[in-house]
Amino acid sequence: MSQPANDTFLRALRREPTEHTPVWLMRQAGRYLPEYKASRARAGSFLALCKTPELACEVTLQPLARYPLDAAILFSDILTVPDAMGLGLYFAEGEGPKFERTVRDEAAVRKLAVPDPSVELRYVIDAVRTIRGALAGRVPLIGFSGSPWTLACYMVEGGGSDDFRHVKTLLYRRPDLMSRIVEINADAVAAYLNAQIEAGAQAVMIFDSWGGALADGAYQRFSLGPIRRVLAGLKRPNDEPVIVFTKGGGMWLDEIAASGCDAVGVDWTVNLGKARAMVGARCAIQGNLDPMALMAEPAQVRAEAIKVLEDFGAPQAGAGHVFNLGHGISQHTPPDNVAELVDAVHQHSRKMRVRGESASSL
Amino acid sequence: MSQPANDTFLRALRREPTEHTPVWLMRQAGRYLPEYKASRARAGSFLALCKTPELACEVTLQPLARYPLDAAILFSDILTVPDAMGLGLYFAEGEGPKFERTVRDEAAVRKLAVPDPSVELRYVIDAVRTIRGALAGRVPLIGFSGSPWTLACYMVEGGGSDDFRHVKTLLYRRPDLMSRIVEINADAVAAYLNAQIEAGAQAVMIFDSWGGALADGAYQRFSLGPIRRVLAGLKRPNDEPVIVFTKGGGMWLDEIAASGCDAVGVDWTVNLGKARAMVGARCAIQGNLDPMALMAEPAQVRAEAIKVLEDFGAPQAGAGHVFNLGHGISQHTPPDNVAELVDAVHQHSRKMRVRGESASSL
Repeated sequence: MSQPANDTFLRALRREPTEHTPVWLMRQAGRYLPEYKASRARAGSFLALCKTPELACEVTLQPLARYPLDAAILFSDILTVPDAMGLGLYFAEGEGPKFERTVRDEAAVRKLAVPDPSVELRYVIDAVRTIRGALAGRVPLIGFSGSPWTLACYMVEGGGSDDFRHVKTLLYRRPDLMSRIVEINADAVAAYLNAQIEAGAQAVMIFDSWGGALADGAYQRFSLGPIRRVLAGLKRPNDEPVIVFTKGGGMWLDEIAASGCDAVGVDWTVNLGKARAMVGARCAIQGNLDPMALMAEPAQVRAEAIKVLEDFGAPQAGAGHVFNLGHGISQHTPPDNVAELVDAVHQHSRKMRVRGESASSL
Repeated sequence: MSQPANDTFLRALRREPTEHTPVWLMRQAGRYLPEYKASRARAGSFLALCKTPELACEVTLQPLARYPLDAAILFSDILTVPDAMGLGLYFAEGEGPKFERTVRDEAAVRKLAVPDPSVELRYVIDAVRTIRGALAGRVPLIGFSGSPWTLACYMVEGGGSDDFRHVKTLLYRRPDLMSRIVEINADAVAAYLNAQIEAGAQAVMIFDSWGGALADGAYQRFSLGPIRRVLAGLKRPNDEPVIVFTKGGGMWLDEIAASGCDAVGVDWTVNLGKARAMVGARCAIQGNLDPMALMAEPAQVRAEAIKVLEDFGAPQAGAGHVFNLGHGISQHTPPDNVAELVDAVHQHSRKMRVRGESASSL
């Protein structure tokens, strides 16, 4: 497949030189955009948006029409996989995602099977194909999935959780069942991401939103291990890069970097300079502005963006930085601040490159 | 003041040799105990429990009657200080703490003043005195406070929060006001802890429950800096040790250890062996079992406790470990599992000491 016109994002992930630091934002197609809210109102529900490829394509492209972002990301939900396993995903008004059926005992675990992405997840694969066509090679398209552990959290809890009581009770009482769940999830995620890549995704990201809830030791066994299993199962005909993002995983950066991924995503608690030193030349780094920094005045947004770039430090052969937030953008974000942010990242990162060329070295 | 009969906890905090690893549990007086629920029902509300010294004393002692814990901790709420500032703490049924008045603008910040612990917080100081008397020197009594930043979160948000939007908006837009809030809080916390120490607290702990929500840089400025200000303001006539616990602060362990505290509390995402190596001989370490490990079978609880002890490693001159959970105990914990835990910590840590004496060295 041909390279996109703007391949800065892919080059940064491969730790090749770029003219500026590429930027995209987690949940960049979302409720802070009035046009997104209009599309969602027309669709009738969030799930209808996800399940209708034309609508998923429409909202995927919305932020790109506003901002010179360096990548598009498939609009979808992280819970499509357990839904495809037959657990019955639904959204209770103002309550977040829920499942009709939970997976808390041996019988429920025995019933789990890897869904066929071309059947049960056909709507996602069709969306990828539609979006890739509509992008017409402007910027790369990122596919994604929840991590095996993060999916397991929702499958066992039956929805969001503050304390992860049910999933951790299962983990501590029946580690054998928990292993089985994350193993099946890993195979499902690998098949799902392979299908997305085949349909046109040029990079993929694994969202381990709840890895940071695990104890040291349990993280390695029940989250990072299964992520490695996903990585091992990926066919990447064009060496499509893989980003692994464990929110709250700063403590395990070194181990994540050793997993075989191409980039590690980091949240805002991590100092990018330290992360870069820890990760070394093994991976690119994606992150890590606090999404709430976008609630400030435009000049302050610029200053915070510059701070993130400077924390990462001077561009250098073998180091790659993809600018992003440390988590999804807030629905309360003023859209104009996103324009400021993207511009600040582009402008300042170009300046850093000029500075780097005129300085002897760092 | 005389040493308690069991001063293992204080010696571990001072990194002196102990016969076993001392253990206490955050929220050890709490809803998992039927006798606590009975006291609370009699009191009528959680706040009445906190505000009546005899009742606070009664529930503080309950876990000690059941388990051979090595320390008692004052039963109180972390939000007593902003309540004493006049913000009007209340508990909405099933919703957690709320404040009648929030602190979100210049006018509200200007009104803040450091409360006099002997007046507005008299009920806490009286509780400390009552508990200290009732303990009759059996084990040490720990006093505590929320950290300046954690208090600020509740003061600005007006209650709990998922995204800390209001407090972070203020932080990013008006860092001057945020600095002022945490400065006043730091002085209030110092006065509060000094009064607790004067009334009989033999160690104090600063709970920075929400420090981990901050970005790198913001944490140092708005949480750890004010904690250092608290430490500087403490009078400790008998060198009463201070424990600083930033939940989600594993990334900043080195900086916390350099703050001048005697012990750092760590949550379960931190590997205790790594933490020990990072902290070195500067501080003791408190932690860090995942509270949800207590939902397992008794034998599994023992195994998880042993894992924490072994992660910390062999007892050694200059190293101190206080066993605890990585956060508060869950209300769903089977009380018998706490007995297993405490026994496992005591038994296994004694074995480790015998092993250490018979081995040449580590």
